[in-house]
Amino acid sequence: MEYFFRRRSVRTFTDRPVEQPLLRKIVEQAAKAPTTGNMQLYSVVSTAEPERRTALSALHFNQQAAAGAPTMLTVCADLHRFERWCELSEAKPGLRNLPGFMYAFFDAVIFAQQLTTVAELSGLGTCYLGTTAFNAPEIAELLELPDGVVPLLTLAVGYPAEEGVATERIAIDGILHSERYTAFSDQQIRDIYAPKDKYPANAAFVAENEKSTLAQVFTDVRYPRAMNEEFSTKLSDFLAKQGLM
Amino acid sequence: MEYFFRRRSVRTFTDRPVEQPLLRKIVEQAAKAPTTGNMQLYSVVSTAEPERRTALSALHFNQQAAAGAPTMLTVCADLHRFERWCELSEAKPGLRNLPGFMYAFFDAVIFAQQLTTVAELSGLGTCYLGTTAFNAPEIAELLELPDGVVPLLTLAVGYPAEEGVATERIAIDGILHSERYTAFSDQQIRDIYAPKDKYPANAAFVAENEKSTLAQVFTDVRYPRAMNEEFSTKLSDFLAKQGLM
Repeated sequence: MEYFFRRRSVRTFTDRPVEQPLLRKIVEQAAKAPTTGNMQLYSVVSTAEPERRTALSALHFNQQAAAGAPTMLTVCADLHRFERWCELSEAKPGLRNLPGFMYAFFDAVIFAQQLTTVAELSGLGTCYLGTTAFNAPEIAELLELPDGVVPLLTLAVGYPAEEGVATERIAIDGILHSERYTAFSDQQIRDIYAPKDKYPANAAFVAENEKSTLAQVFTDVRYPRAMNEEFSTKLSDFLAKQGLM
Repeated sequence: MEYFFRRRSVRTFTDRPVEQPLLRKIVEQAAKAPTTGNMQLYSVVSTAEPERRTALSALHFNQQAAAGAPTMLTVCADLHRFERWCELSEAKPGLRNLPGFMYAFFDAVIFAQQLTTVAELSGLGTCYLGTTAFNAPEIAELLELPDGVVPLLTLAVGYPAEEGVATERIAIDGILHSERYTAFSDQQIRDIYAPKDKYPANAAFVAENEKSTLAQVFTDVRYPRAMNEEFSTKLSDFLAKQGLM
């Protein structure tokens, strides 16, 4: 249980490759995770060949964890495999709609998180690359994903070359609501976020980016509206092309 | 590690309530899970009061796990809390678009899965209720969810009154693709799903439902197109109302 409290992402890795039998064992364990009606609407593509890895890393903006990871695991929502089984079984699948997308999205993310936990408990370090959604069409092309398959999350995986840095979390009373959603007052919101604002690494972010509040680092630097809106169009076009949504 | 191989959902519970300190500890550990840029775009509402629990169970069609669970945990995508912090910090959030929805969706599902794992390793039994999306507007009303908050997944939680039933999974070669997505032949698809088709509980499903294949149980009985399409409209209207998508 101690693992869950100490859990941290790892962004630098040794040169040791992730052994194929270990990778298979981890995927097999992760696949025991819950899935919608046991449909298992997900797949994972592993990337370890140097050339393809370099190309995939570039699509993740060569961020530190991507550039240095011996293996990248791209977790995909996958209607394709299930639908082909249905077609071969005289059954007509009806998942090309918002619930179908959500089942596949749930299945893929639950699987990805179980993969993370199992990999870390097996001695590997991992880091989620949230950038997958930004370049989903290009990643799909590189990994030869067919219709019905969408890359959602990527895990950089390898043997850790660092302990990783613990990131702070807001207090539990900001997250857990009893019986009904708490209508927080402004003061309660300030109290929930005060330790986050004061956290030394966050205060340093604010100074580095010449902002006056931590929230502005999120809204103006890391996740600005213009960037999100640009990717919104690109991503929704791609989801439509792949037949999800 | 053995836990991950043996992991199974539990649908019947003893009368013993889930103690509040234990619930808080589990949520605190689960909140250490990875989250998009550490924004923590999720919340969880616990339901244990008998009257509200009965009402919530009805919205989950009184399925066995919902009807008997002493506690239900509704995990929500939550832009509301983060946006209020931004507004109180002279920052303009820009997450009301597809990427914003996906960040919150990722965060909520990753958190839900970590919650499941930590709860089960703490001696509780859990079962996901995938029905949350079907009655999201009614659940939001019951739990008083504000604008920007959408219920995604619900966990039925309690002390187990049964071991749970292990469900089969397809073989790893159907899930794990090396370097590029494998273009499976029809025969390969048949081979991947053959053990699932033959699994005794699945064969029994086919007979009970008077179908000729297992896939038809999925497409005609459990997740028929007409049902998915009906909920597609309801759900997309609700997402628009709550400002996500």
